[in-house]
Amino acid sequence: MRDVAIIGVGMNKWGELWEKSLRDIFVEAALKAIEDAGVDHIDSMYIGNMSSGLFVGQEHIGALMADYLGVTPIPSTRIESACASGGAAVRQAFIEVASGMSDIVLAGGVEKMLDVDGNDATAALATAADQEYEVYNGVTFPGLYAMIARLHMDTYGTTQEQLAAVSVKNHHNGNLNPNAQYQFEVTTEQVLNSIMVCDPLRLLDCSPITDGAAAVIVCPLEMAMNYKNNPAVKIAGIGQASDFLALHHRKDPSWLKVVEIAGMQAYKMAGKEPKDIDVCEVHDCFSIAEICVVEALGFAEKGQGGCMASTGRTAIGGEIPVNTSGGLKSKGHPVGATGVAQVIEIVEQLRGQAGERQVHNARTGMTQNMGGSGASGVCQILEAV
Amino acid sequence: MRDVAIIGVGMNKWGELWEKSLRDIFVEAALKAIEDAGVDHIDSMYIGNMSSGLFVGQEHIGALMADYLGVTPIPSTRIESACASGGAAVRQAFIEVASGMSDIVLAGGVEKMLDVDGNDATAALATAADQEYEVYNGVTFPGLYAMIARLHMDTYGTTQEQLAAVSVKNHHNGNLNPNAQYQFEVTTEQVLNSIMVCDPLRLLDCSPITDGAAAVIVCPLEMAMNYKNNPAVKIAGIGQASDFLALHHRKDPSWLKVVEIAGMQAYKMAGKEPKDIDVCEVHDCFSIAEICVVEALGFAEKGQGGCMASTGRTAIGGEIPVNTSGGLKSKGHPVGATGVAQVIEIVEQLRGQAGERQVHNARTGMTQNMGGSGASGVCQILEAV
Repeated sequence: MRDVAIIGVGMNKWGELWEKSLRDIFVEAALKAIEDAGVDHIDSMYIGNMSSGLFVGQEHIGALMADYLGVTPIPSTRIESACASGGAAVRQAFIEVASGMSDIVLAGGVEKMLDVDGNDATAALATAADQEYEVYNGVTFPGLYAMIARLHMDTYGTTQEQLAAVSVKNHHNGNLNPNAQYQFEVTTEQVLNSIMVCDPLRLLDCSPITDGAAAVIVCPLEMAMNYKNNPAVKIAGIGQASDFLALHHRKDPSWLKVVEIAGMQAYKMAGKEPKDIDVCEVHDCFSIAEICVVEALGFAEKGQGGCMASTGRTAIGGEIPVNTSGGLKSKGHPVGATGVAQVIEIVEQLRGQAGERQVHNARTGMTQNMGGSGASGVCQILEAV
Repeated sequence: MRDVAIIGVGMNKWGELWEKSLRDIFVEAALKAIEDAGVDHIDSMYIGNMSSGLFVGQEHIGALMADYLGVTPIPSTRIESACASGGAAVRQAFIEVASGMSDIVLAGGVEKMLDVDGNDATAALATAADQEYEVYNGVTFPGLYAMIARLHMDTYGTTQEQLAAVSVKNHHNGNLNPNAQYQFEVTTEQVLNSIMVCDPLRLLDCSPITDGAAAVIVCPLEMAMNYKNNPAVKIAGIGQASDFLALHHRKDPSWLKVVEIAGMQAYKMAGKEPKDIDVCEVHDCFSIAEICVVEALGFAEKGQGGCMASTGRTAIGGEIPVNTSGGLKSKGHPVGATGVAQVIEIVEQLRGQAGERQVHNARTGMTQNMGGSGASGVCQILEAV
């Protein structure tokens, strides 16, 4: 297998993009990535997208986006692993370049979620859970993650204040990110006084509904030196795993086994350990998710994730900065694009281009993207070269 | 890149499978493929599916199927390229094995289309066309292919009887296929007297709505000899292409450029020409599609596809047998599974296991799978080794 590098990244400012369509926002992000890389063509394309059929009545977006990006007749394929679709798209691009099948591959992600009303968006997202055994009985994702949170609180003594600390940190970081949907700070009191969505998760524990797109360009590491726009960033490790779709089938619903396994694969491929990671983007779809993920990736002991944000250990300048981009909570969560944007944040950190969010001397970074309540997981470890 | 072989195949009898769910039918086909291959594990999985979100309210079927097949925590990813999703899933499995990333990979496809009413099924399928410029204005797929048919008839003199000959041939073949949805013959008169769906396409020019699944197991060619259940079949060539999504954007809507390009890629990789192909499965979603495809793959001159079926040249025993399985018309068209089942038919032909449908001394076969009105295309060339 050939070594693979990321040579270009691009995304738009995420948010409520009423004036733009699904194809508009993808093409905008893809063109930025192509320009950033300085490539004059691409050989193949993968697009992470969870549910454009339910959100905007459009499947077949591989061909649609090749068409509107002006790159036909290249192969262009949609990748779906619920909210891990973007991370999975990057993995497919990695494999295609590593194989020698193609040299320059675009991995993108896009979701247009605001064009339906809130109930329809929640219903569309619920199709990432088990339709027959979970959704049929009325549960949606706030309920599933609330059960994880309640279990974590009961088992390990995790507190509502510790959950709130995740949101406070991520809004602080997002306030420094010009592409974030919510560029404002929130206080612990605001989080704790926000309306209850599903006990114990309050509105400010939950990531928002977002329109957005993101794209990266990958090529063989040995070709990366031909594109001098940016320092190359190597994809040193990559992992993907699956778990039982329904939360109630898992032995310990508060332990994200899918994250542990995808993380271990990435660590092993890269020859790294948790202590080697300088900066990490994780899937904080709800505040409790970040707490579980930092445990599963080995940044905290099992059950001890709750104090990571509240004690400043995951802050910029802390021992392992997590979600410097603002995370899903503040940057936004256009589900199919999220995993790609995580990669972009790490690339910018490793290039030293993260502005006020810059982690000092970041050389190795990691991403963790998750689908459903933890049934799909993708991790990547990136290295400055 | 490593050479890749297919060592196991499995599908269920397609049709109106009211008593089985999406997960049931996929697992049934996947277990048959695993048993046929004689493998004791799989490393990774791809599932072609066009629109389970709209058909049955379930996305995230990569994880779902890994769960119900009992193969977690392996990576499992859904691939979507409209009706070419199955062919694209096989291509992803090919790339993953060729790269060295994994050894034993399952490529499957599944669609459960009967659980919604006919209008909803037509609407779900229409999401493979351009939602903003085609579907919004009221056109669905019978209308798009009717326009292709009318143009082909006006330009080249193709007749309604020639269209009918495609359906007559494919029903003849499907009648010999125990897995086909429609195991009965139709006459030219029956086709010509069937109700008009969209002029000039009649009911018996159109492939049906189908529930079904299919799966194949691929591994490195050099490992195939370890699995002695079956003679190995090599994936000698593979191609995938894209074109403008909307029919009206193409210079000549009756020429399937996406098929020409994907076919040329596959021919080039395999070192083959059209004359080397002994048997071919093509995407006859409508009778006119088979006529256009046999031209684009080089089996007939441009404009001369109409006479291929009517003169018996594409019959079993003819110069290039096409759709020996019964094709989409008679075998059925569960959209995400179709491309995988095409591969299965060719594998069975190359193994000499096609029963009454067997093409004498078939050594090299080809598949052609298509999405939308010709915006995505995947071709494979398989060889007995």
